[in-house]
Amino acid sequence: MHHQSAAMKECIDNCLNCYRECLSTAMSHCLDMGGEHTKPAHFRLMMACAEICRTSAHFMLIGTEHHKHTCRECSEICRECADDCERIGDMASCVEACRRCAQSCERMAA
Amino acid sequence: MHHQSAAMKECIDNCLNCYRECLSTAMSHCLDMGGEHTKPAHFRLMMACAEICRTSAHFMLIGTEHHKHTCRECSEICRECADDCERIGDMASCVEACRRCAQSCERMAA
Amino acid sequence: MHHQSAAMKECIDNCLNCYRECLSTAMSHCLDMGGEHTKPAHFRLMMACAEICRTSAHFMLIGTEHHKHTCRECSEICRECADDCERIGDMASCVEACRRCAQSCERMAA
Amino acid sequence: MHHQSAAMKECIDNCLNCYRECLSTAMSHCLDMGGEHTKPAHFRLMMACAEICRTSAHFMLIGTEHHKHTCRECSEICRECADDCERIGDMASCVEACRRCAQSCERMAA
Repeated sequence: MHHQSAAMKECIDNCLNCYRECLSTAMSHCLDMGGEHTKPAHFRLMMACAEICRTSAHFMLIGTEHHKHTCRECSEICRECADDCERIGDMASCVEACRRCAQSCERMAA
Repeated sequence: MHHQSAAMKECIDNCLNCYRECLSTAMSHCLDMGGEHTKPAHFRLMMACAEICRTSAHFMLIGTEHHKHTCRECSEICRECADDCERIGDMASCVEACRRCAQSCERMAA
Repeated sequence: MHHQSAAMKECIDNCLNCYRECLSTAMSHCLDMGGEHTKPAHFRLMMACAEICRTSAHFMLIGTEHHKHTCRECSEICRECADDCERIGDMASCVEACRRCAQSCERMAA
Repeated sequence: MHHQSAAMKECIDNCLNCYRECLSTAMSHCLDMGGEHTKPAHFRLMMACAEICRTSAHFMLIGTEHHKHTCRECSEICRECADDCERIGDMASCVEACRRCAQSCERMAA
C-alpha cells in the first residue's frame, strides 16, 4: 500500500473492522433475535454504519482529500450506532468496534 | 419502492446516473486517452465522485436521515468533478450528470 | 457513457433498478412488516440480491469481460429472490424487477 | 462477529486485504507510474479485482450460501491479477495479497 501514514492505515483498519462487525451482527445476531434488534430505526442505523465505514475506507484508499468529510460523517454515525447497540445490549463487540472507529475517524477528519 | 418522496426518487436517479457516467468515463475514455485524463488528481476525483454518488443513493434507499450529510458531500464532490472535467474537455455528458446530481443533492441536504 | 452496447446499457439499467427495489423494499417494507419478512433466510437473500446487482452493474461499467460471470451469478440470485418474494407476497414490484434483471443478466452471461 | 468458521474469517481477512492492496496500488502507484500501469486492460483488471474482493467479503458477512460462487469468481480474478502485476513488476505486495486471497477463496468455493 502507498501514500498512507500510520494513522491513516490504522483508521482504514478500524473502518473495515467496524464494517465487518456491523454488517455481520445485523445479518446474523439481529435477524436471529428479532424484537428490538429488527426495529427499523436500529436496523437501518447498523446498515448505514456498515456502509459509511466501507465508504470512508474506500476514500482513504483512493487517496482523496475528501476522506476528511466521509471520516467526519463516519465518526458521527459510529457514535450513534455504538450508543444504540449499548442501549439494546448483547452487542459488546459491535459497540467496541464502533467506538474505536469513531475515535480514529475523528482524528482523520481534523 | 417505499417511503421515498418524488424529490428523493429523482435524487436517487441522478446519483446513480452520475455514478454510471463517472465510473464508465474514467474506465474507458480516460484510460484510453491518457495524458491529462489519467493524472492522479483528476482520476482520483472521478473515482471519488462515482463512489460518493453510489453511497448517497444507498443512504436514501436505506431510508436513514444521515442521507442529508452524504448528499451534502456528494454535491460538493460532483461540483468539483464537473469543473475538472470541463477544464480538461471532451466529457460533456459527465459534466452534465455531475451538475444535475449536485443540484438535487443540494436540495436533499437542506 | 462508452463502449456499451444497447443490450449492456439495458442490463445495467435493470441491475441498478433491481438493486434499488431489493434494498429499499428490505429496509422499509420488510422491516416494517416483520414476521416472514425478517426471517433470516429471506432477508439475507434480499440483501445478497441487492449486492450482486450493484456488483454486476459495476463490472459492466468497468468494462471487464468478467461481467459475464457476475451476470451469471446475478441471474441466479435474482430468480431465487423473485421466487421467495412471490411466495411471501405483497412485493410485486420487487418480483418484477428481479425477473427482468434475471433475464437480461442471463443474456449478458451467454 | 457471528456464524463464521475460522476458515471463513481468514478468507474475509484475505479478501479485504486484497481489496486494500489492489485499490490503493491502482490509485497511487499505477497512476503515478503511467505507461504499462495505466493501460486499460491492466488497470481495469485491478479495479475488477478490488471490487470482487469487496463483494466476496460482503457475501460472507451477510451469511449467504451464494458466497461460494462469488469466492469462485474472486479466486479466478485474483489469480489473473497476480499474474498481470507480476508481468509488469514492482507490485510484489499486490501480487502476494492476490495469491493469498485466491487460495483461500478457492477453499471457500469448494
